[in-house]
Parts: sequence; C-alpha cells; structure tokens
Amino acid sequence: MDTALHIRLPAFLIQASDEPRVLTAPEARMGYVLELVHANMAAGGGPFAAAVFERDSGLLVSAGANRVVPGHCSAAHAEILALSLAQAKLSTHDLSEDDLPAYELVTSAEPCVMCFGAVIWSGVRSLVCAARSDDVEAIGFDEGPRPENWIGELEARGITVTTGLLRDSARKLLHDYYACNGKIYNARCSSNR
Amino acid sequence: MDTALHIRLPAFLIQASDEPRVLTAPEARMGYVLELVHANMAAGGGPFAAAVFERDSGLLVSAGANRVVPGHCSAAHAEILALSLAQAKLSTHDLSEDDLPAYELVTSAEPCVMCFGAVIWSGVRSLVCAARSDDVEAIGFDEGPRPENWIGELEARGITVTTGLLRDSARKLLHDYYACNGKIYNARCSSNR
Repeated sequence: MDTALHIRLPAFLIQASDEPRVLTAPEARMGYVLELVHANMAAGGGPFAAAVFERDSGLLVSAGANRVVPGHCSAAHAEILALSLAQAKLSTHDLSEDDLPAYELVTSAEPCVMCFGAVIWSGVRSLVCAARSDDVEAIGFDEGPRPENWIGELEARGITVTTGLLRDSARKLLHDYYACNGKIYNARCSSNR
Repeated sequence: MDTALHIRLPAFLIQASDEPRVLTAPEARMGYVLELVHANMAAGGGPFAAAVFERDSGLLVSAGANRVVPGHCSAAHAEILALSLAQAKLSTHDLSEDDLPAYELVTSAEPCVMCFGAVIWSGVRSLVCAARSDDVEAIGFDEGPRPENWIGELEARGITVTTGLLRDSARKLLHDYYACNGKIYNARCSSNR
C-alpha cells in the first residue's frame, strides 16, 4: 500500500479541528464556516467553506474549504473535503453508522450537483447552507444540472435541509471574491455563460 | 502547508500508470478498466474502476478504483479518484485547458450523481461506460437522483458519451461481487430499497 491521492491543505484548515470546539447555535456554526471562507480566500482558495459538526452536541469534527485551483483538483470542493476529513477522522465511510451520533454539514453555499451527491453518500443527517444557488451563480460559478427538486430528494433520504442562514454575510463574501478578480474556474464547462 | 487529505490506494493502482501504456481501441481501454475492477475486488474494494486516457493517442494517464470502504471515504469512487489523480499528475484542476490534449474517462459503470457532477467539473471531453445503471442497481448499488436526461446534460456541455461498451463483461463482474457477498455500502441511504 502507498499513499496515492493527497490534497494539500492550508494550515488553518488542519488546525481548525485540532482543538475541541463546540458551537451549539446554528448561527455560531455558520459564522465559523464564514470565517473559514475568509481565511481560505486569503490562502488562495475559492470563496467556499464547510464543516462537519456533531448535530446535537455542536462539536466540530472537520473543516473544509474550496482548494480546486491551488490543489489541482476539480473535486476539492469544500463539502467533499469536510466530509472526507470527517470520515477519515472517524475511520468510516458512513457517518450514519448506528454507533455514531448524528452529523451535520454546514456549508457556506448550496451544494453543486457533485456535492449534492456527496452529501447523500456521506451519511450526514442534516445540511445547513448560507448562500443560495442564485448568489453563487450571480458571480459566475455554476451549480451544475442538479435535479430540480434537489432539496426534496435530500429530505426523502432522511437529510434535513436548512438554507439561507446568514445569507447576506455569505453573499458579501462571494462579492468580495468577485470584486478581487478571484478565479471563476471551469467557467468554460458551463452551458450558461 | 501540510498534507491533510490522503486516500491510500493499493499498489496495483499506483503501478497502473507508472509505465507508458497506449491503448487505442475503445474495447482495449475498457478491457483494461475491467481488469482493474477484478484487481480492485481482490484488494478489498468495490466492483468499479475507471481510467483517464488521452482521447486521441490512447496514452493512459491515471487509473482509479472504488476505495470507499477500505479508504474510509464515501467520495472515493473510481471516477473521482481517476480524475483527481490525472489532475494531480498534470498539475491542473482543468483537463480542458487549451495547451492540453483532449482527455477521456473510461469507467466500468455509468456514473452516480456525484461522479456525474465530477465529470462535468473535470474538463474531460469524452465519457465511455460499460455497465448501465440498471446493472449497477440490480445488485443493490444506488446511482442517486441524477437528472433524468443526464447523458444529454453532458453532451450539452461538450462531453461525448458512449455507454454499454463491453457491458456483458462488466455485468458479470458486478454479479461476481454480489455472489461473493461484497459490501453494498450506503444502502441505508437509498430510498428505493
């Protein structure tokens, strides 16, 4: 066996879950994730972050951020990294295992089609988003061809969805990124611009 | 900076693209991918593999296989790993960059909703599949809620799609896996069984 796929992450992400951090209020969890967005933009990443918490206790398990461009990996979206890091930490591919508490993914924006699928496979029981897809697409990013009723599809699989939490703050970060000429990657792959 | 997310892969995957390998015929490329499925099942992985080739020359760039259960990572599908390893090798998040040749993803089965999204973001220009979704779902795996016209969505974004190539051989591998009581993970997250 050898290590084959590794995605380098900035120190702030590694350190994020090194010390115990408990955030019980939904706004506190999202506020923390938006701080990660800010730090990630400063570290050359995209304007997206996400974190996995124990849903009921509020214990932070893992933190991720968009490292697509610096990480040379189009799958290195915040949600994929946060979920994968949580699973690595807990040594399981399934966060819904019976002997585990329920987990929540808190993300700075509604997921793209890839991450929508990743949320389903991860085993999280709850998804909380800040920016709406309209906000993401307003600065040129693409959510991709999700099923129209994507929230209903998640709810049908036992994953509760909350969206628009601290939306204005999240939208401001997206606009800050755009105003600073942040790279809107993969734009060529989109059919709508 | 520190390495944070790393997914350990079996030696056969690392070695797969170590030496130059050129496969020009579509059937030869898929035959190679189906060999990877067989090797991956023997190495404790799921019954899926994928590889990235230079579309026109047939040069193998990277190989991936499903490492969800042994890798403790629900995103470690064959397509995600093959695409990410290709991007790491080429030091870019976008395989459709102007100074690169066109790339093709050859996969042993039609992609789930997560990998459908990952294919779009990757920059590959061509997708070739063996098993159909019906074959995958017949043994209990779930493709997830893709848009109904997922092939059309890919084609609309400039990605050509071929499916059913060496389908019978791929289906036989899926049935071999099922017959040996291979783990059908994340079944609890599916609404249809």
